[in-house]
Amino acid sequence: MTALSPLLIEEAVRAALKEDLGHGHDITGASLIPSDAEMSATLNAREEGILAGLTIGLSAFMQIDPDCEIEVYKYDGDLLASGDTIAKINGPARAILTAERICLNFMSHLSGIATLTARYVQEVDGTDAQIACTRKTLPGLRAFQKYAVRCGGGMNHRHGLDDGILIKDNHIALHGSVAQALETAKANAGHMVKIEIEVDTPEQLDEMLAHGSADIVMLDNFSLEDMRKAVEKIRKEDSKMVIEASGGVSLETVQGIAKTGVDIISVGALTHSVKALDIGLDYGV
Amino acid sequence: MTALSPLLIEEAVRAALKEDLGHGHDITGASLIPSDAEMSATLNAREEGILAGLTIGLSAFMQIDPDCEIEVYKYDGDLLASGDTIAKINGPARAILTAERICLNFMSHLSGIATLTARYVQEVDGTDAQIACTRKTLPGLRAFQKYAVRCGGGMNHRHGLDDGILIKDNHIALHGSVAQALETAKANAGHMVKIEIEVDTPEQLDEMLAHGSADIVMLDNFSLEDMRKAVEKIRKEDSKMVIEASGGVSLETVQGIAKTGVDIISVGALTHSVKALDIGLDYGV
Amino acid sequence: MTALSPLLIEEAVRAALKEDLGHGHDITGASLIPSDAEMSATLNAREEGILAGLTIGLSAFMQIDPDCEIEVYKYDGDLLASGDTIAKINGPARAILTAERICLNFMSHLSGIATLTARYVQEVDGTDAQIACTRKTLPGLRAFQKYAVRCGGGMNHRHGLDDGILIKDNHIALHGSVAQALETAKANAGHMVKIEIEVDTPEQLDEMLAHGSADIVMLDNFSLEDMRKAVEKIRKEDSKMVIEASGGVSLETVQGIAKTGVDIISVGALTHSVKALDIGLDYGV
Amino acid sequence: MTALSPLLIEEAVRAALKEDLGHGHDITGASLIPSDAEMSATLNAREEGILAGLTIGLSAFMQIDPDCEIEVYKYDGDLLASGDTIAKINGPARAILTAERICLNFMSHLSGIATLTARYVQEVDGTDAQIACTRKTLPGLRAFQKYAVRCGGGMNHRHGLDDGILIKDNHIALHGSVAQALETAKANAGHMVKIEIEVDTPEQLDEMLAHGSADIVMLDNFSLEDMRKAVEKIRKEDSKMVIEASGGVSLETVQGIAKTGVDIISVGALTHSVKALDIGLDYGV
Amino acid sequence: MTALSPLLIEEAVRAALKEDLGHGHDITGASLIPSDAEMSATLNAREEGILAGLTIGLSAFMQIDPDCEIEVYKYDGDLLASGDTIAKINGPARAILTAERICLNFMSHLSGIATLTARYVQEVDGTDAQIACTRKTLPGLRAFQKYAVRCGGGMNHRHGLDDGILIKDNHIALHGSVAQALETAKANAGHMVKIEIEVDTPEQLDEMLAHGSADIVMLDNFSLEDMRKAVEKIRKEDSKMVIEASGGVSLETVQGIAKTGVDIISVGALTHSVKALDIGLDYGV
Amino acid sequence: MTALSPLLIEEAVRAALKEDLGHGHDITGASLIPSDAEMSATLNAREEGILAGLTIGLSAFMQIDPDCEIEVYKYDGDLLASGDTIAKINGPARAILTAERICLNFMSHLSGIATLTARYVQEVDGTDAQIACTRKTLPGLRAFQKYAVRCGGGMNHRHGLDDGILIKDNHIALHGSVAQALETAKANAGHMVKIEIEVDTPEQLDEMLAHGSADIVMLDNFSLEDMRKAVEKIRKEDSKMVIEASGGVSLETVQGIAKTGVDIISVGALTHSVKALDIGLDYGV
Repeated sequence: MTALSPLLIEEAVRAALKEDLGHGHDITGASLIPSDAEMSATLNAREEGILAGLTIGLSAFMQIDPDCEIEVYKYDGDLLASGDTIAKINGPARAILTAERICLNFMSHLSGIATLTARYVQEVDGTDAQIACTRKTLPGLRAFQKYAVRCGGGMNHRHGLDDGILIKDNHIALHGSVAQALETAKANAGHMVKIEIEVDTPEQLDEMLAHGSADIVMLDNFSLEDMRKAVEKIRKEDSKMVIEASGGVSLETVQGIAKTGVDIISVGALTHSVKALDIGLDYGV
Repeated sequence: MTALSPLLIEEAVRAALKEDLGHGHDITGASLIPSDAEMSATLNAREEGILAGLTIGLSAFMQIDPDCEIEVYKYDGDLLASGDTIAKINGPARAILTAERICLNFMSHLSGIATLTARYVQEVDGTDAQIACTRKTLPGLRAFQKYAVRCGGGMNHRHGLDDGILIKDNHIALHGSVAQALETAKANAGHMVKIEIEVDTPEQLDEMLAHGSADIVMLDNFSLEDMRKAVEKIRKEDSKMVIEASGGVSLETVQGIAKTGVDIISVGALTHSVKALDIGLDYGV
Repeated sequence: MTALSPLLIEEAVRAALKEDLGHGHDITGASLIPSDAEMSATLNAREEGILAGLTIGLSAFMQIDPDCEIEVYKYDGDLLASGDTIAKINGPARAILTAERICLNFMSHLSGIATLTARYVQEVDGTDAQIACTRKTLPGLRAFQKYAVRCGGGMNHRHGLDDGILIKDNHIALHGSVAQALETAKANAGHMVKIEIEVDTPEQLDEMLAHGSADIVMLDNFSLEDMRKAVEKIRKEDSKMVIEASGGVSLETVQGIAKTGVDIISVGALTHSVKALDIGLDYGV
Repeated sequence: MTALSPLLIEEAVRAALKEDLGHGHDITGASLIPSDAEMSATLNAREEGILAGLTIGLSAFMQIDPDCEIEVYKYDGDLLASGDTIAKINGPARAILTAERICLNFMSHLSGIATLTARYVQEVDGTDAQIACTRKTLPGLRAFQKYAVRCGGGMNHRHGLDDGILIKDNHIALHGSVAQALETAKANAGHMVKIEIEVDTPEQLDEMLAHGSADIVMLDNFSLEDMRKAVEKIRKEDSKMVIEASGGVSLETVQGIAKTGVDIISVGALTHSVKALDIGLDYGV
Repeated sequence: MTALSPLLIEEAVRAALKEDLGHGHDITGASLIPSDAEMSATLNAREEGILAGLTIGLSAFMQIDPDCEIEVYKYDGDLLASGDTIAKINGPARAILTAERICLNFMSHLSGIATLTARYVQEVDGTDAQIACTRKTLPGLRAFQKYAVRCGGGMNHRHGLDDGILIKDNHIALHGSVAQALETAKANAGHMVKIEIEVDTPEQLDEMLAHGSADIVMLDNFSLEDMRKAVEKIRKEDSKMVIEASGGVSLETVQGIAKTGVDIISVGALTHSVKALDIGLDYGV
Repeated sequence: MTALSPLLIEEAVRAALKEDLGHGHDITGASLIPSDAEMSATLNAREEGILAGLTIGLSAFMQIDPDCEIEVYKYDGDLLASGDTIAKINGPARAILTAERICLNFMSHLSGIATLTARYVQEVDGTDAQIACTRKTLPGLRAFQKYAVRCGGGMNHRHGLDDGILIKDNHIALHGSVAQALETAKANAGHMVKIEIEVDTPEQLDEMLAHGSADIVMLDNFSLEDMRKAVEKIRKEDSKMVIEASGGVSLETVQGIAKTGVDIISVGALTHSVKALDIGLDYGV
């Protein structure tokens, strides 16, 4: 599993704890729980799925009280069965109860993404297609969501507007022509930047192939039939060009799309429409 | 519709733009679009739903370039039909293309929440129950998500650990008894703080009713039958106590729960498992 | 004593240290004190009072140098006699001299609040009234000041505009009538939010009692005679309504107010006009 | 009146508004006040004093809503009579009610400082002494408090540990001797930094005068008799050395201290024990 | 010229102003300049060079006082002759004098980078080589420095560790072999990420060519002779692979390197060893 | 060597790491290096110079992974010979490779400043002149650059606009006359603030000497001959006034300037035109 900057984790978890603590403290815990009470709790999966966000979630406990002690049984990317214990936390009861919700909010959301990604990945098993996420992420959570996609076996598209060129019809219209746009992009992009061009119709694809070539071509909202023909045509023209399919991808349609021979299928829903994985904290023992 | 602090909006949108711009700029736009090109775009609903996050989303354009001019046709809380135009933006093409995704990421997520909330609210129509969200929110987005719930006709529960007391079984176990916990909570809470107590079984409810009284009682994961009996019993004991149902609430079950006579039904999925509403930006007049 | 988020403490102390260190370092210490010099210092009360802010103040030393070692003899909420040693710090001399002023600035201000609060609490001893603070706090210090009020035996009112409804005459004027305002507030507030209404005259009280009921009624600037009558009338109408007195409260007047039978007396001066408690750091054993 | 960085003002006021708005909005105003309601309000002195913090306080309204319109009648440093109108605000009612408390919290605290400073300044009228504040400020508010001291006719001492050298007995003890400490300080300080040395007894003064010279000498906690003699001795030795008195300064003692002939009298209470000036916002014309 | 996020500019300039204003204000200006004094000033080149950072520098004036009025005569990327007027500022004298140094610190540093870059670009004129900067930037200034390189006609390499894969010998040693490293990188990188591999000797190049292929190969510290041979060999093997030269590049050596036929020459000194361009602000008409 | 606030160091290094990690992680290291791989590396000087920024640079490793173990052989202010090992780092390979560039970016820049400063200091050896830096620093790096100047044996001028008064011709023109400006500055400055006045011609010097006196006089862009005469004249008038030379100072001219008898020579190039010192990280034992 590829890692995530510890600085990002620390800051996002701190911000989430501050968001939950609002004007300053957990008034229930402060009122009712003796400041020296200790407690033990286990983090358990309540349904099947792929774990993501373990370190992120657990850091909530450590930030509130570094005296928390944690044993880990499952790691990011692991398949969880319902009932599996993910980790065990021992420590000050106030701290554990204060951090619980923030831990779960991160972990269940990110595991939901990993789980959904894994389902897509499974659907395209046996084809050459890979599943990728998009920039349709929730504000402030992009790096975490993209990490969760990797935990689920998917790959990342651009991280932002700054790290890849994606030419759409508006860019072409405003710049002049496909040929001009591709040429200018190459001249400006820098040698470390890949260039992708989006085509919305077979005609646009033909125009693109006639006038230039990009690192990646995105077939947006093509019918399966058109997509198949497009793949065939592109492979003939430029065997190195990566082909990405996007638009209207769902668990129902993804296999058909994969079988057209595309390399990448990008799925906005992986990050913009996420069902949380049910994970809970159980006390006692 | 209740408002949201302009300071919160400005900071969250700024952070989201910075997240997307990463190392500093939209390399596609900067390469291909003349710096003086102007453009017009409309924000359109691509499916039916309730709008939420209009001001938030539109502020992305204004932050990138205050020269953007915006006309608004729909407002937060409005019902959108598929195809409805929400707003029109005129301005520098680079700015519009840079801010587009951030605008849509906020607006489609928050409208997704409002739309889902409205469906729950519709399900309980004709009963006295109200739909409320929980603290199961996405990190960093709580105030926005809770606002979207209000746009959809729902109401907010606690905003954080600091603005309401919610006594759960752990608190009771660590403090001593139900009676003691309620008494201590009242003594510590301050006169502006409400106290809710969670009961998981009819037995716990009886113990609670025998030993004290809270502003709100939460019946967690009660069967419909047990819930009906609990409501009856509580009404008899303390007619002013608010009754909240939680656990296992879905669009399928919510009407049945509402018919037991509870006052509030809290639904974690409103904010933790959100399907984005499909909203898009179309260019040209 | 109820706790305060360690994240809040860490950030406020860090900000205060940065404010004092300005462009970067203690130029006196850096010039004159060998970097390896060790030192011992004790924190002593120079007058009688109630301690508040111990952990906050001491964290200044730890932030500058985690090698500081601290022994604690007194805790927040403790009564300090003049001359009492609160804590002892051993560590690098530069660190201790750098952090000294910030430690004392927090601790003497917060202990000043706790001490003043305790005097008010003592004045109302034997009555049912409790002493509460207000939103008249010093910018950036609210959570700390409210904590200090708790250390002195007082209680907190609203923490901010977001966690309680307080209807004043302007709200009523702009909304329509007392009855309408109360009804709307109840409909919008959410079940976890308490509603308080301020009345400035016996006539306003009558109008309020005729048209609705709130969780708390605030009698603002009532004469003792009017207050006594108001309490009597309210108790008759709604025995559960909490009665708060505000306006013109001083150490001279608070006992008389308490004897009218009100539940809460809110005192702005607890946080807006604070005399620091004299606490000093003495060097050497 | 010397100015204050607009960046500092904007950030402190923003932070204060966020502190008050907590989880996101003024729930009373949002519930009860129509979003298009307009309102007029005047800011009035309720007791005599010196105004400080006008721009700071007023910026709270502008930050919440730039549509607020403000007319100003009094300026920082002006003497306010009870009843004087300081400024008039017209604008959206929600904005005015949201920002009111933050405006007043800044303005009444800072005016309290200016007023107290002016009383000290008045006490030393006719002598050559000037009144200065210290580093005993409230965390996060130092620049604002020091500004208020200037508004009241006082002057500022060091702003922090970084912009002036103040040698105390601990520094001397840890460094070696008075002579060595002064020499080292001069060598390290940089030519733009002034050096002050604190002496606690006439004997220490003699030692200092025998071994070196500083820009300023601070006589800490000297009796009036000792102070008079010290001033005489210092003037003879080094007519350019500035003499500062500190310790035990109050409105009762300050005139006597000034008459000993010292140049500067520093008063911690100006910033650590401040009584707010009573300023209020009145609605309606 | 490609743009830079206005959010980045605003924050960096604000931070720089705060750094210069320290404890809060320009004490010289506040003491000596009437608050209503107006002034006119021109920004002039005092030596020949390429302008970069115009908008950035000018925003310092606008942040301190939005009433400043600015006329612009030269733009980023323009060649400046000594004596050329870049812009004229009219406005409050205090604001102009406060912002002057920050404006110049940004503009002279960034123009220094653009000027040096242009000299390198000129040296390789007539060859196919392009000049690129590296990650050897000054902390906190990377996006600005990389922008200045673009103003000077250079191009950017990776912006950070996150937006391009650069495999060095350590990575190979820790991963296993060249072949394995390339394969793993491709599998993990995502389709929008380019992969570069660094080779330090002709032998390493052979090993690389035998076992795989990257988007870019970096010839690090090759002699001119070795570089020529390497270019020839690479072109034969994979005509699409981009060839980058790095190490020991100076204004004296760059032309020779370019003539070996490489595509990119990366120069750390463009950003880590910058001579400021002499730009000054002149007052009066 | 005088110290630097650990809080400043922590924040600047954190910001630099975040700048380099962009969207979240080192994609090369995450792809190729096993998460449990350990590594050893040494930090070596590749040319002669003065070390500065050791603690700052090394903290990059500790922030990424506190498990890094560091042995230090050279300290800030030490003379480095080419080939000298400065420190050795053992720890997780991913962390070391991630932090490497940030460590080096700080250390080579700051050591470049210290090295250049030391050369200037050496040039004036045998005279009474000291070398000082100016406010011509790189945005965001001032405290670090000024620290590096101290490491090289130089001294600091003002740290910002807030901690010293420097009267230039504009101030005089806007205020009235030299005499008035000096008088007003003294009245406003506070007793801890030094006052410097800049004179650009012998005539201005005469006017200044005729009308007042400052703590420091700056002779700006004087010829050597004029400077010599000015020094003589000033020494006669006010033996305590510090004399600073500025303008046109280079390694070639500085000795001549020093021999005119001035006390301070300020050199903008120390911080605005810095050649990085070549320091590298070598892997393996």
